[in-house]
Formats: sequence, structure tokens, C-alpha cells
Amino acid sequence: MLALLFFNMKIVIIGSGNVATVLGRKLFLAGHTIVQIFARNPTRATILAAELNATSCSTWNAINKTADFYLVALADNALEELSNHLLLNHQLIAHTAGAVSKEVLLGISSNYGVFYPLQSLRKEMKETPPISIIIEGSNKKAVQQLQNLAKSIASPVEELEEQQRLQLHLAAVFVSNFVNHLYVQAEKYCTTHQLNFKKLLPLIIETANRLQTYTPTSVQTGPAARFDTVTIEKHLALLQPETQLLNWYQLFTKSIQQQ
Amino acid sequence: MLALLFFNMKIVIIGSGNVATVLGRKLFLAGHTIVQIFARNPTRATILAAELNATSCSTWNAINKTADFYLVALADNALEELSNHLLLNHQLIAHTAGAVSKEVLLGISSNYGVFYPLQSLRKEMKETPPISIIIEGSNKKAVQQLQNLAKSIASPVEELEEQQRLQLHLAAVFVSNFVNHLYVQAEKYCTTHQLNFKKLLPLIIETANRLQTYTPTSVQTGPAARFDTVTIEKHLALLQPETQLLNWYQLFTKSIQQQ
Repeated sequence: MLALLFFNMKIVIIGSGNVATVLGRKLFLAGHTIVQIFARNPTRATILAAELNATSCSTWNAINKTADFYLVALADNALEELSNHLLLNHQLIAHTAGAVSKEVLLGISSNYGVFYPLQSLRKEMKETPPISIIIEGSNKKAVQQLQNLAKSIASPVEELEEQQRLQLHLAAVFVSNFVNHLYVQAEKYCTTHQLNFKKLLPLIIETANRLQTYTPTSVQTGPAARFDTVTIEKHLALLQPETQLLNWYQLFTKSIQQQ
Repeated sequence: MLALLFFNMKIVIIGSGNVATVLGRKLFLAGHTIVQIFARNPTRATILAAELNATSCSTWNAINKTADFYLVALADNALEELSNHLLLNHQLIAHTAGAVSKEVLLGISSNYGVFYPLQSLRKEMKETPPISIIIEGSNKKAVQQLQNLAKSIASPVEELEEQQRLQLHLAAVFVSNFVNHLYVQAEKYCTTHQLNFKKLLPLIIETANRLQTYTPTSVQTGPAARFDTVTIEKHLALLQPETQLLNWYQLFTKSIQQQ
């Protein structure tokens, strides 16, 4: 009976962006009750509230103070100001930011923490990809509650201290934002040369998927790893007019060969 | 009847590495007859031949001269010497290299070309990922035959001239070899800080998969794209002792912000 009550928490979601929307949907589908959506923009609050069968508000005073859990999915700089606007009665509150201390929530409630989804979330997605959630809590009870909430929508779930979460966030920047920037470079190059970037998709997807079986070090291939100077010279000749790509090519080739 | 004969070609495979093995399996499963495997290393030739129900040989003189198609999956430098060892009677021959001219096969047969799989192939794979094949032929008949062969095992199949194939090969280096090098960097960083790199896998796979729906430019996110200097400063502080990663971080951040 207790477990049942526990897994059906009354939740207020603060935010209406990609993270608020996707986590809100997941929590709703897991059987939790979304009581309210807060967003500065009333239209966005109303749209998400309608989808999640919740009420909406766009002023701080109107926030429902009787929920069990407050999920804050705001931009990092908005998090810093949150304690000026919100005071709870010891209910659980957590933010979703990978690189912000849980202590920004100190003063809002005695039970607070972090609920960081280690995934690229977009509200337009029809199917949500698997999500890992990293949690951190101000006390044992907060940790336990956040863990249960996270396990109801994600796997794996892990407790990490702030420093390690920040390190993981940094590693995520490399494997997602920086990797995507390489995709952008390749797409531009393809467009310049009337090649369809989509032809590379099976290779792009396999390069990611094979990490389920192999370590990246064990599958590093290509002209640089083979010290294949003939092919490298051909590539450099092709890149002559494109200074920026040429720089990237030389940097990566050198770095791969140094390993 | 002609179509049936056509799709059941007698094939000699020259090579026994990853590409020879994976393409050999695909051709075998598509109903073609693998008559012979040639490899310098007799053991490797025998092993692959046994799997594909073929004979094997490891001297050039012993190569069967009565097949319909000779698939050459050798290292680029070995391709340059192939015409010293092999002379065919106008049968079709093609190599699998992305960055080598088809003209290295000139003199071996009047029907020659390229059969380049745009994919990362490993013989240990239990399931082969989808493969695109890029073809090029010395004449219309060679193009048509290579197209039909490629379509029997891959999709999409496309004819590209040498310059465009080389450009696509270069783009593939960016989205596969260079992307994998970023994975290597992140894995090392995780290991140094006692973090399990595998936690990043759902994010890595989603970052690739979302390109099926979005262009990379439209999904470029992260602290750099948001000009989020607070997070960038936190990351730079974390990276202080790790010079190489710090350099990569600054280069990518600058490049993303210039777009």
C-alpha cells in the first residue's frame, strides 16, 4: 500500500521546454499525477498542461504548494534565481541540470536534489529513446525518493556526487555536442560537393551502435590509425580549398597517430 | 532465365580480411556461388573458404580463371601491385577500396570497376549492419553488372565517379574515424575519473539515430551552441590538468560558436 502510494506522486513541473515536456510525459505515462505546469509563457504552460491532464500557471504565486514533488527543468541561469520566487513546505524538489549544484535549491525546501537525464531530449520526438538518470539528494530520504521516481521512468539510474556528475556532463559534451559538430562539418562538405549526407547514415549509426559490443579504442580504424600516408595525402589534396576542414583533418590525424 | 543466371554469379574473392569476409558472406547468402578464396595466408584462406563452401588458394597461379566476378578486398598498397600477378579473360573484377582509382585494375581485364561498401565491417559481427555500396565501372556493361551484384546485398547502391567517391570517403572519415576518436577521448576521461563510459551509450546512440529525422545543424545543442559561459568555465576548470582534452574542448567550442 505504501509502495503504491509512493509510486503515484503528485508532481508540479516547472518549465515547458524539451526536458520538462519529455520527462513530464514519461512521469505521466508511468502513472504519476501531474498536478500543475508552471511556465513564464502562459501559452506554453497551457499546451503542456492540456497534454498531461494538469492545470497551468505562469506566476510564481500561483504555484500549487500541496504536491509531493517539484521537478524544475529551467535554463541554468534561471535556476540561480529560483529561491527568490519559491518556498516549499519540505516537499521534494529537484532540478534537471547536469552542470548546476543542487545547492541552488537550498532555502526552497529541506528535501532537494538533482534529477539529471543523460540524454538528448526533444519534445517533437514520437518515441523517447532510453534515458539514464543521474540523481543526487540533500539527505537519504531525498535520495531514496529521487531514485524511486527515476526508476519509474529510466534505466540505469545512478547516484553521483556533484563533481562526478559534472565530469559525466563534460564527457557527454564530447560524445554528443562535439560529435554532432563533426556531423555538421561533414554535412556542409557533402552539400558543397553535391553529395547526399544521408548516404553516410548507415555508417554513422553503426559507428555508434558497435560501442555496445566493442570499446572505442579497439575499433579505431581509418587512414590515420593505419598510418596510410597515400590516402591521407589524397584527402589533404581534396581539402586544400577548405581551410577549416583541413585543420580538423590534420588535428584528428595527428591525435589518432599519437595514441 | 537470363536474370536467374545473372543473379547466381560464380565469384572468386581475393582477400580474407574484414571486408572480404563480410561481403563474401553476404554474397553467399544472396545465392551467389563463391568458387574460391585467395589469401596470402593459407590458414585464413582455408577458414573463410570452409565457411563459404569454396576452395582456397594462396598462390597467384592457382587462382581459378573461370569465374564470372573477382572481388578484390586487399589493402590499398597491395592493389597497386595486383596487375603484376593476375590476368583475366575479360571477366568482371572490382576492388572495394574507397580511395583507390579503378584504373589500378586496368590490364587485368577489360571489365573492371569499384565495389566500395560505405560501412564499418568487422568479421566478428554476428549481424551485419545495413550497407550502402558505391560502384564505378570501366564500361556500361561493367556498371550494370556491378549494380546488380551490389543490389543483391546492399541498399542504397549508387554509381559515383572517382572524385565524388573520394569525397564521400573523406566525409566518412569525419563521421566515423574522427567521431570514434572523440569516443576514445571521452572513454579515457571517464576511466581516469572512475566513471563508466557505458553510461553514455544511450546518448551516443541517440545522437546518431536522431539524424534519421533531423539535420545535424538543426540539433546542435550544448553549452557552446547556447553561449553558456558559466558551464563552459566549469568544464574548462575541470579540464585544467588534461591539456589535450582542454585543447579539443576549446577548439570545438570556438568552432561551434562561429557557426
